[in-house]
This record gives sequence, structure tokens and C-alpha cells, in this order.
Amino acid sequence: MIAAVFYQTTRGVSVGIVIPLEENRNPQASITPLMDLVSQDMLLVNQLILSKTGSDVQMIPEVAKHLIDSGGKRLRPMLTLASAKMCGYSGNHHITLAASVEFMHTATLLHDDVVDESDMRRGKSSARKLWGNQASVLVGDFLLGQAFRMMVDADSMGALAVLSNAASVIAEGEVMQLAAAQNMETNEDDYLAVIRAKTAALFSAAAEVGPIIAGAEKPVRDAFRSYGVNLGVAFQLVDDALDYGGSKQALGKNTGDDFREGKITLPVLLCYRRGSDQDRAFWKDAMENGSSSDEALLQANALMEKYGAIKDTISRARHYGQIARDALAPLPPSAHKDALLDVVEFCISRVS
Amino acid sequence: MIAAVFYQTTRGVSVGIVIPLEENRNPQASITPLMDLVSQDMLLVNQLILSKTGSDVQMIPEVAKHLIDSGGKRLRPMLTLASAKMCGYSGNHHITLAASVEFMHTATLLHDDVVDESDMRRGKSSARKLWGNQASVLVGDFLLGQAFRMMVDADSMGALAVLSNAASVIAEGEVMQLAAAQNMETNEDDYLAVIRAKTAALFSAAAEVGPIIAGAEKPVRDAFRSYGVNLGVAFQLVDDALDYGGSKQALGKNTGDDFREGKITLPVLLCYRRGSDQDRAFWKDAMENGSSSDEALLQANALMEKYGAIKDTISRARHYGQIARDALAPLPPSAHKDALLDVVEFCISRVS
Repeated sequence: MIAAVFYQTTRGVSVGIVIPLEENRNPQASITPLMDLVSQDMLLVNQLILSKTGSDVQMIPEVAKHLIDSGGKRLRPMLTLASAKMCGYSGNHHITLAASVEFMHTATLLHDDVVDESDMRRGKSSARKLWGNQASVLVGDFLLGQAFRMMVDADSMGALAVLSNAASVIAEGEVMQLAAAQNMETNEDDYLAVIRAKTAALFSAAAEVGPIIAGAEKPVRDAFRSYGVNLGVAFQLVDDALDYGGSKQALGKNTGDDFREGKITLPVLLCYRRGSDQDRAFWKDAMENGSSSDEALLQANALMEKYGAIKDTISRARHYGQIARDALAPLPPSAHKDALLDVVEFCISRVS
Repeated sequence: MIAAVFYQTTRGVSVGIVIPLEENRNPQASITPLMDLVSQDMLLVNQLILSKTGSDVQMIPEVAKHLIDSGGKRLRPMLTLASAKMCGYSGNHHITLAASVEFMHTATLLHDDVVDESDMRRGKSSARKLWGNQASVLVGDFLLGQAFRMMVDADSMGALAVLSNAASVIAEGEVMQLAAAQNMETNEDDYLAVIRAKTAALFSAAAEVGPIIAGAEKPVRDAFRSYGVNLGVAFQLVDDALDYGGSKQALGKNTGDDFREGKITLPVLLCYRRGSDQDRAFWKDAMENGSSSDEALLQANALMEKYGAIKDTISRARHYGQIARDALAPLPPSAHKDALLDVVEFCISRVS
């Protein structure tokens, strides 16, 4: 698959370029090495996840399984497993913490769908569409409670400090996004603060708890934290770009969702700031009043192309991806390190 | 203030009785001794609560303060303070844990209002009415995250285990209640399971973390846990009774809220099970279809009186209150013990 992206040259000429997104991508840019390295541990994580969604209250496993089975890649728990192993950890607590991280993520998704009033999640009906807002809020709370119980099982106050901090920061980021919603004056720095909190904080915590339970030195912990936060920012920016540039099939969710929900993401910010007065009036109307027509989406995509907003969002993602790679650079070579470096490229070039 | 309650004798005669609820209540039945004993510590708890609702994201302190300032008695954190002191604790972590407990409670209230679609809370507009469901969900999540961060600060894995377990159980109880909603076949045991989870679990955890950080023996911990859970059940049952029998002013919330929301509580269960076919048809219609008219509420109250449902709900509450008192009986006498015993009676006789 390829994505055609158009941008404007300095002389105002629109030029089309084609970015290979899947078939021709860097053969190293794969998540497969990471998946292979952690596959045995991941089986245990999945077993634990299954057992911890169990409850006598029937609705809980139903809702939880709907979301957990819905085809996420479990990238975040894989970061925990790989970072622990890369630091020489030989116990079992990385399994427990990896499952905690996935539960925190799942709880966030459940609450996000309520907050965003989303009816779709990864190409399937969202939990709130199927079971209502009430169940989504409460099962999210249950999973968060279970996440903390598992952290207690992992018996590391250091890991608990990092993950409980992430829980606060994620919610803070979501509130920030809510407050910034429909405010076209949001600038790139504001937006980065939002995604650092709502997305990157969990990537960062997931990567940092590995070295913590392995008893690694502070510079090593710091390296993983930096890797995680920058990978998370890159991941979110690519997600934002894909919502305008990807294909429905490959994405597993409807392209244009962010636009229809009036979500101000980096592509929109760039378009708005670079646009004419007329363009800005279009964006203001679309974001503030929710112009959900197909015509409006077509016009939005045309403006994205005209101002190079997708291409530049991907460039920004590459920038953070590079910081993530450099964060791990001083660490000794290993298969796990190579796999984690590949994941950065994978996240940037991913279409599925 | 008095509440007039009518019940039916075994021979089918309706008899009115008057239960003194305020002016003539047992002079020992006061929360004042407990408040006096923990007042110095409570100042520190309040300071900590204030500082931990701080965030650069403006909406967070606004929403949090609205709820925190809205006149709750902070009974749960007082249980933590008193149980720690009663077990001879001399450090500062009881302050931190007490604040955690209050944050868990506040987060639950925020999410409850979303789930129940409540517009009022303690006689004031609910947060979801003022700031919307989105902010209520997310600020609840933030407060839960902050609660866990404070637990980490308290540096007791035992306290963390108890409180994280409570977080899961509370959410489980809420889901149970959701699943049982509008199901008139819910029986008293089902209902007790719901309130043990959604209300009593936090009372229990609040009381148990005191002896835990004080390093008390298992029988002492168990005594406080039993005290907490039974006090919590009694507290909830009285709440349920007050929603039909109290006065709006004294309650700080609208009498009849549970009825209008179609909430199946013990008074309703008792009325339904004891009623005629015609009565059952009334309750089914009211609970399942939401008969919110004043006439329906009057009829509901008349049925409550006819079948002694309020009186017997209060009797049930007294039963659990007695178990709570007996749970503490083996512990050595102290001012804190007396205050905790008084609180049981206070909860049962409270009207404000």
C-alpha cells in the first residue's frame, strides 16, 4: 500500500509525492523481532490478563474481553517485557507489570470512548456502543483497580511510583485535551503537552518499569524513560496523520474520525496556522461546529495536501523517533535493543 | 426532627410509630468525639487533599474542589486516622492514606453521577451537570491516580494491597448494581452483595489500613476490617431508608431521588416482596419505566409505610451496626474506641 501525499513548495506549487507505507518500507522496520523475542512471556501475560478480567459479575469479563480481544498489538506490555530482559531481569514480575500496563491502557480506551462519544474502536463497535457509557466507565474503573492490584503483586514500590504517576498524568492529559477541544488557538507546544501526557506517559512508564525491577542504574532507567516518551509522541503523531492519510482497511478504524469528532490534532494545527483567512474560517467551522459531511472531509484532505500537513506531521514523528533511538544508543548491543530500535521505525511506517 | 413510620402488624393492621431521628436521639450517638480526636490530623489531611488536587490543567482543581468542598463529613478518612492512632501508630503515613481514601471516595462519586445521570449531589448541582460527563470521568480518573500516588508515598505494600483491592471491588459492586438495575427479582442477598462491594469495601479498607501501618496483629486488623464493612453496610441501608423517609433539608439531597432514578434499594425490595400483585405491578412499572410523578412517589411512600419497609430497613442497619460494635469489643478501651463505637450509632440515627 502507498499513501499519496501532496505538499506545497516554497514557490507555492503543489507537488505530489508518494511515501511508501507498507510494501516498500524498510525491511528492518518491523515489530516481528520484538514479538518473537517476547513471545513466551507474552503467552503468560495473556493468560494473566484473561484470569484478571474474571469476575462473578458477568458483564465485566464480557466488556473487558471485547476490548482486549479486539486486535491491539500489545505494544506497551511488550516494551515492559523487553526492557526488563534487556536489563538482565530473571524473575517473573515483568509479566505482572506488563499485564498491569495493558489494563491501564484498556481502562483508558474504555473511558476515552465515553469522553469522545465514539461508536467505533479498531473497526468494531465500541464497548460504550454495545453496553452503554455506564458499563464502560465502571469496567474501566475495575480494570484500573485490577492493574494496581497486580502492581502490588509485583512487589516493587519503584514500579508502583512510576505507574501510579502515569495514571494521574494520563488523566491530566485527557482533561487538557478536553479543555483545548475546539480551541483553534491551540499551538504545537500545547498539543505536544497533551500527547506527552495522554499517550507518551504510558509508553514511558511501560519502558521504565523493566529496568526498575531489574535494579538497573539511574542512567539506564532514564534512557528507557526517554525512549518510551519519545516513541509515544511519535506513535501518536503517526496516528494523527493516519486518520487523514491512511486507508480504512489498513487502519481498522474509520479514516476521518478525528475530523468528524472535531479533534484538533497536529495536521489540523499545521493546516490552520499555514492557511489563508478563508481556510481558517473553514477549520474553525469544521472543528467548532462539527462539519461532518463527506464534502467537508474532502476539503479538509485537500487542505492537508496543499499545506503539507500530513508530510510534516510524519517528519515531526521521525524527529521524536530519532530521539527515542538515540536514547538507547549508549546501551550495549543486544537482540532486544535491536528489536526496540526496529519498533520505532515500525511505529512511524505502520499502516496496520 | 422526627420521622413518622408506619408498619403493618401480623394481623394486617397498619400502625404508625414515630422514630426519633434527631432531637431525641441517644446523646452518645454523635460523630463529635471522633471529630475532636482527629481534628489536628484532619487539618493535615485537608491540606494534603488541597495540594494534591493542584494541577496546571485548570479544570482539575475546579471540579475536584467543587466536590471536595461540598460538605461531606469525611467519615472514611477519619476511620483511617482513628484506627491508626488506636493501634498506637506514631508516624505520618496515616495522613497520606486518609487523603488517599477520600480521593478514592471522591473519584467514585464523580463516576457515580455519570453512571446514574444525576444532576444533584448533596443538594448542589453535580459536577457532571456543571462540567459535563467528560470532565467528571477524567477528573475522577485523575483523583484515582493521585490516590495511588499518595499510597506509594505512604510506603506500605500492605496498605496498597488493601486499597487497590477495594478499588476493584467498588467498581465490581457498581457493575453488579448496574446489572441488577430494574430487575425486580433482585433479592436481599443480591442487594447486600452490591452494597458490601460498592459502599462497605471502602469503609472496610479505610479502617483496616490504620492497623496495617501501625504493625498490628492479624486479629486486630481483622477486627477493624469487620468493623468497617459492617459499618459501611449499616451506613448504606440508612441512606436508602433516608431517601424515602428523611427531609430534603436535613438530607442535603432530594428525597425520592432513588425512586425517581428507578434504583432498587432494600426498602423497595422489601415492599415488593411483601406486597400484593397490584403493589408489585406498581413497583415494576415505577422501577422499570421510571414513573417519576409526585403521585407515584406518594404511592411509593404509602406502600413503604404499609409494609414497614423503612422501619425494617433501619432494623437491618441496626443489626449490622451491632456486628460492627462487637467487632471492636475485644480491643482495649480507649477514647478512640469509644468514638468509633459512637460513630456506629451516629450513622444509624443520622439525619444530616
